[in-house]
Amino acid sequence: MEPFFKIINVDNASRTGVIHLKGININTPCFMPVATQASVKSLDSFELKEIGYKLILSNIYHMAVRPGINYLHKFGGIHKFMNWDGLILTDSGGFQGYSLAHRVKIRNDGIIFKSHLDGKEIYFKPKEVIEYQENIGSNIMMPLDICLPKGSNENKLMEALETTYKWGKESISARTSSSSKLFGIIQGGNNLQLREISAKKMTQLDFDGFAYGGLSVGEDKDLMIQTQISANRLLPEDKPRYLMGIGSPEDLVRSIYNGFDMFDCVLPTRIARNGSLFTNNGRINIFNSKYKNLDKPIVLNCECYSCHNYSVAYIHHLFKAKELLGYRIASIHNLAFLYNLMNEIRQHIKNSDFSEFVNEFLSKYKVPNQKVQQEQKSKWIESKGRIKNKI
Amino acid sequence: MEPFFKIINVDNASRTGVIHLKGININTPCFMPVATQASVKSLDSFELKEIGYKLILSNIYHMAVRPGINYLHKFGGIHKFMNWDGLILTDSGGFQGYSLAHRVKIRNDGIIFKSHLDGKEIYFKPKEVIEYQENIGSNIMMPLDICLPKGSNENKLMEALETTYKWGKESISARTSSSSKLFGIIQGGNNLQLREISAKKMTQLDFDGFAYGGLSVGEDKDLMIQTQISANRLLPEDKPRYLMGIGSPEDLVRSIYNGFDMFDCVLPTRIARNGSLFTNNGRINIFNSKYKNLDKPIVLNCECYSCHNYSVAYIHHLFKAKELLGYRIASIHNLAFLYNLMNEIRQHIKNSDFSEFVNEFLSKYKVPNQKVQQEQKSKWIESKGRIKNKI
Repeated sequence: MEPFFKIINVDNASRTGVIHLKGININTPCFMPVATQASVKSLDSFELKEIGYKLILSNIYHMAVRPGINYLHKFGGIHKFMNWDGLILTDSGGFQGYSLAHRVKIRNDGIIFKSHLDGKEIYFKPKEVIEYQENIGSNIMMPLDICLPKGSNENKLMEALETTYKWGKESISARTSSSSKLFGIIQGGNNLQLREISAKKMTQLDFDGFAYGGLSVGEDKDLMIQTQISANRLLPEDKPRYLMGIGSPEDLVRSIYNGFDMFDCVLPTRIARNGSLFTNNGRINIFNSKYKNLDKPIVLNCECYSCHNYSVAYIHHLFKAKELLGYRIASIHNLAFLYNLMNEIRQHIKNSDFSEFVNEFLSKYKVPNQKVQQEQKSKWIESKGRIKNKI
Repeated sequence: MEPFFKIINVDNASRTGVIHLKGININTPCFMPVATQASVKSLDSFELKEIGYKLILSNIYHMAVRPGINYLHKFGGIHKFMNWDGLILTDSGGFQGYSLAHRVKIRNDGIIFKSHLDGKEIYFKPKEVIEYQENIGSNIMMPLDICLPKGSNENKLMEALETTYKWGKESISARTSSSSKLFGIIQGGNNLQLREISAKKMTQLDFDGFAYGGLSVGEDKDLMIQTQISANRLLPEDKPRYLMGIGSPEDLVRSIYNGFDMFDCVLPTRIARNGSLFTNNGRINIFNSKYKNLDKPIVLNCECYSCHNYSVAYIHHLFKAKELLGYRIASIHNLAFLYNLMNEIRQHIKNSDFSEFVNEFLSKYKVPNQKVQQEQKSKWIESKGRIKNKI
């Protein structure tokens, strides 16, 4: 039998590998587009497939709120619902415990959400969260965890970590079969000591892979990288390493350099809908008047559907005219850019020249101002967590 | 040489035919999707083509406002801009003289628009409007005309009709080649006498086809049908007859019965984005909770992309969750529904049993309340003509 995860090439801390599940092979490192509400915003299943994606992410909190877990179970699962014949990893709702903090109470035995739709109370407990994920047909499940905001104090972090460990154990016991895989989540913020404690405990449990959580909550980039570097030492080599919530090209390149294999983020599609497009030199803002006359694809030689068929000038027009088609063309391009970047990275790891590639890529790729970026992100998270009805 | 228009079958007043232009054949009766701003809302060129469309409509007023006529001319035309290898009919801006009335002054020699985007003055004159359409590469051009609101008095209608005739003559003189076709527009509201005068004058001019304008401005349906019936007697048999601004299934069936060949309307895509979907029994509102669990296509045996791939339940979810994908799936279905309806109608005209089909179709197809429909339409037109800067 094919193993769930196999490493193919190693280059310093970086690795290429294959995730094998239900007859589908996913080459790692891989990026997973996010279908929060059973739809990768503006795209359909066949467009994702055409780009090359075979593994996407959804979210069990959002699925519980709408259309509902029982609903999806009766319908025949989330794959059938969205007509997706690839794999789906589902996040546990732990991140929403952070991003919707104002609507949330964290208890010793679970997280109480006040639904952001109708205010109804939803009590997520570790066992039930596994049951939910199995019921909707998740291929890779995440256990309920506690994700704390940037700057949380050590006691709180330690406590969250203990609870996450306890919930991890409960999650493993709750599984009814091994056909859906289950990853453990390492927490501890940017406190290296706590990360080490968390990793040591979690990796003793029988998980199929390990994730670093809570590293995309507006932390300082340098600290984040330090924390990432520790992962190589703290996580077992033979299991996939998933860095949650990371999706900018510069972060992906660095994180793969530090030994991570899997990533997800709404960033590529969210910024696409704001007119921000990935190129090899950094992001461009399609609204800029200099693009009005540009009769060229977004990225020369990019073979994505958008670059193959539409000029920058037309996309500029669509955004200025607020035409829905623009958001789709931009989203396809950004997701294809990351897909192709992963291909390229795997090739360089295979050739053992990935560190040269990292240097070259980062020297060309102009990164948006970190402060501005963090402010934007905080605003976004804030807007999602807007207080309507405090529990 | 293939003629521009050839009639194939006749069944009472109804006809099937072929429009031949630039090596492309369009079977009539045909419906034309509307790409007001060089995009059929939410769809791209290849999706339109996949449904079967080879002739779409755009609007020279909107193109003048954004991205601009000179811009499109330099870019290489509107086809290249939106990557559309089919045909494009462009409306003249006459309808915007009505729908944006508060931003418009109608003169004897043209229409002065105050741009709805930046307030800039745009003076449309018949000669220039032809030049604009030739410059952007329109395949079928419409001359500038005056379209008056419902209930306009006879003097005003008569005056508009005279001006439209004068502009029609100027438009014919302005053409620089016969490769772009040019249609004449018959006006006169629902006054049969004025329609007759308008038709008699216009059909003496050398147009490639004739359009009935001003019949979708909120007029009473029965009156509209009376006016349509007159068309058969007033318009030459051997040229295409285009009924402007008509796009609901019930109106299309009736208008074809009365001898019209070509139609356009934003209705199918506009109502799609509001969750209203065509079925053989009438429109359905996808938000209705009875669709939440329906694991079936919108229309059984419909072979459109949407019905082939997605359930009503999923589309219901997408609309409830405000996911952009929903608007696209709905738009594809409504446009495919009309495309297939045209196919079916052509078959029945060929079989000489079209009147039976009309009766059967209209007995099954539940038509939305006319009053509600007209109120919705008036609101929509009003919202477009909102006074910001009166000229």
